[in-house]
This record gives sequence, C-alpha cells and structure tokens, in this order.
Amino acid sequence: MNAPPFSASFQSELETLFRWRRDVRHFRTDPLPRELLDDLLQASCLAPSVGLSEPWRFVLVNDADRRSAIRSNFERCNAEALKGYEGDRAARYAALKLAGLNDAPHHVAVFCEKDPAQGRGLGRSTMPETTTWSAVMAIHTFWLAAVAAEVGLGWVSILDPDTVHHALDAEDGWEFVAYLCVGYPLEPSMTPELERTGWEQRNPERRVWITR
Amino acid sequence: MNAPPFSASFQSELETLFRWRRDVRHFRTDPLPRELLDDLLQASCLAPSVGLSEPWRFVLVNDADRRSAIRSNFERCNAEALKGYEGDRAARYAALKLAGLNDAPHHVAVFCEKDPAQGRGLGRSTMPETTTWSAVMAIHTFWLAAVAAEVGLGWVSILDPDTVHHALDAEDGWEFVAYLCVGYPLEPSMTPELERTGWEQRNPERRVWITR
Repeated sequence: MNAPPFSASFQSELETLFRWRRDVRHFRTDPLPRELLDDLLQASCLAPSVGLSEPWRFVLVNDADRRSAIRSNFERCNAEALKGYEGDRAARYAALKLAGLNDAPHHVAVFCEKDPAQGRGLGRSTMPETTTWSAVMAIHTFWLAAVAAEVGLGWVSILDPDTVHHALDAEDGWEFVAYLCVGYPLEPSMTPELERTGWEQRNPERRVWITR
Repeated sequence: MNAPPFSASFQSELETLFRWRRDVRHFRTDPLPRELLDDLLQASCLAPSVGLSEPWRFVLVNDADRRSAIRSNFERCNAEALKGYEGDRAARYAALKLAGLNDAPHHVAVFCEKDPAQGRGLGRSTMPETTTWSAVMAIHTFWLAAVAAEVGLGWVSILDPDTVHHALDAEDGWEFVAYLCVGYPLEPSMTPELERTGWEQRNPERRVWITR
C-alpha cells in the first residue's frame, strides 16, 4: 500500500497550522465537548515512540483541591524564578501564565512511564531519555490536533516535578513531563505572546544548520 | 486577527498524516531537491520552544568519513544493546536500521544548545530539560512536514552521544539529540515496521489517561 499523496493545499495548510500553534494563556472558561477531548487524547497516541513503547500517560486534573495545589506550586516556583529578572516585564508575564491556570476548563498533566515493558527496551540503551522524548512528541501531537480543532493549549513548565507528582497522586515510575491548560483561546494570534509583550523575538534569519 | 478555520477535511487529513508518519528504514538513494530539504528545516523552526529560545541546531552530515564514523558507532552500540535479546529477531531489526544509514541520501544530526541566550532563561528554571524537549519537537515538526512531502525519516538513537559530538566536531554546549536518516521511502506503510516484523504492537485499547 502506498502512502496517500498529500495535496499541495494540505501541505500549505499544515504550514499554516505550525504557524498558528501558539502557547495560549487566555482561555474561555467553557469546556470542550467530551468527545473532542477524547479525540485529541487519542490523536496524541499516534506520536512516534522509541521501540513502539508508547510511554505517555495523561492525567485529567478535575479536582479543585488538586488544581489549587498546582497553582500554589506554580506561584512559589515562579516567584523564585523571577528573582533573577528585571521586575516589571517579568511580573507581567507571570500574571499571564497564572491567568491560564485560572481560566482553562481542562488541566491535563502528562507523565512518562520511565521503564515501560512495551517496546522491550529497544532503541533506548544508549539514550534512555528517548522514552521521555516520546511523551514530549505525544504532547506536540495533541497540540497540533488541538489547533486544527481551534482549541488552545498552554504548557506550564514552572513547576516542581516532585510536588506535582505528589499532588496528583501519580504512579511510582511515572516522570512528570508537562502540565497543560486546554480550552478555547480567547484571543488567537499568529504572533507568540512572548513576542507581543516584548520578552523575546523569533529569529527567522538565523542560520540553524551547518554542514559537516 | 482570528485563527484560520481549519476545515473538517484538513483535520481528517492531519490524522491521516499522524497515522502515516513512520520510522523509515528503507530509502531510495536519490537525494531530495535542495530546496525541499531547506523547506523542511525551515518548517521545523516553527516548533514550540521554551521561552521562545529556539535551541535546535541541525548538522547536515555530508562527509563520507564522518558518516562512516557514525555507522561504526551504531554497530558498536547496537552489538552491545542486542546482547540482552533473543538473537534472531533482534539481529534482523539491527540489520534494518543499518540499511537506513547506508542508503539514506541525507543524514541530519540534531543538537540542542543547552543554555541559549535567546529566551532569557524563561520557563526552564525548575525544568531545564524543556530546552532539549524543544529540539525534540522541532524534530517532530520536521518529521510531519517530511511525511506531507512524501519524504521519510528514520531516527537512529542507538549511538553514543559523546562519540557523535566528537565525530561531527559539534560546538561546545551543544547536546546531541538525534541522528536522522532522510530520503524517499522505498516501501511506505501505515503499519510500524516493528509491528510488521513482530517486535512490538501498538496498544490502541489501552486506556492512557486517568482522572484525578
């Protein structure tokens, strides 16, 4: 069986999708249809994984107390992280991320099963990190499928992994990878918010490859 | 500006793309048009990155001696890795991967700049691995754009990172992430080769999410 030919218009729309995939901080509070959330989680399981180990594990965080524990942890870690920055802009950025945690209707924590039986260890003898990287690509797959369905995702990384693991009562052997805010974006934009707020710019001119 | 509405047909084709994205081991030896390879590398730079740090660095490995050093390293690491397996099937798998290294017209090594100035450190205080994960998502973006253009990619992870770094004369501060074989696939398939050869199966029935 041959691969389907993807049309030029699909390829062009795919690039548009890459360009519109943003880290969203402002969400509407109305939830996604449950079926859509399921579809996005199923799509994410089509990601590549080392040795076909499929080590991604998703936790839908619905409990108010657990969400509150995550928010407190973010505030604590963020206060620490911002000490090194010039206050004004950094504080503004922090406020944005917090807004996501407050408003997003869905919270999805992503873990990786560090030593999965599935895959029989293939491909990760010299680079065991590839297991975690498989979970990262599942998140990226979820993200792209979400954007195609006009759903936004915000990745919160300013958290202490051990605290999250405990707050969510995650299984032993699971490694915390990401905490995702998911919902309909309030103000879609093609320009990264970090660029709009003046934090950092994309560097399209930069030559990112060399030849050896 | 509102996000473009992605059509139902685009969403469906996107899922087809996820399903057809395979780890390819058999390549035709004819090279990609140079412009196409450039386009794929540019597309990969649209990936998410922590703090907008864009830490991915690509090395096009064209030199025959360097390629040979990588191949030797793979054979050495793989021989070591296969000691733990039942010989027959494992040896067959190893042969497949080696075929990719021999035939693929393009070899792309991907590194991550571990402590990039760009991004000003934002978002990676508690989870510095997010920098590496950004490079992983760039690889995944490259992969998807490649499949849409009917190009195949094989990710070789059975390598010693230090040896690769040295063999490619990579810059200090760059972390080796992946060695990619790139070219037109010889036998496209929707079924993972690991599944076809009986190594492992996808587990579609498995419940990969829980609620907390």
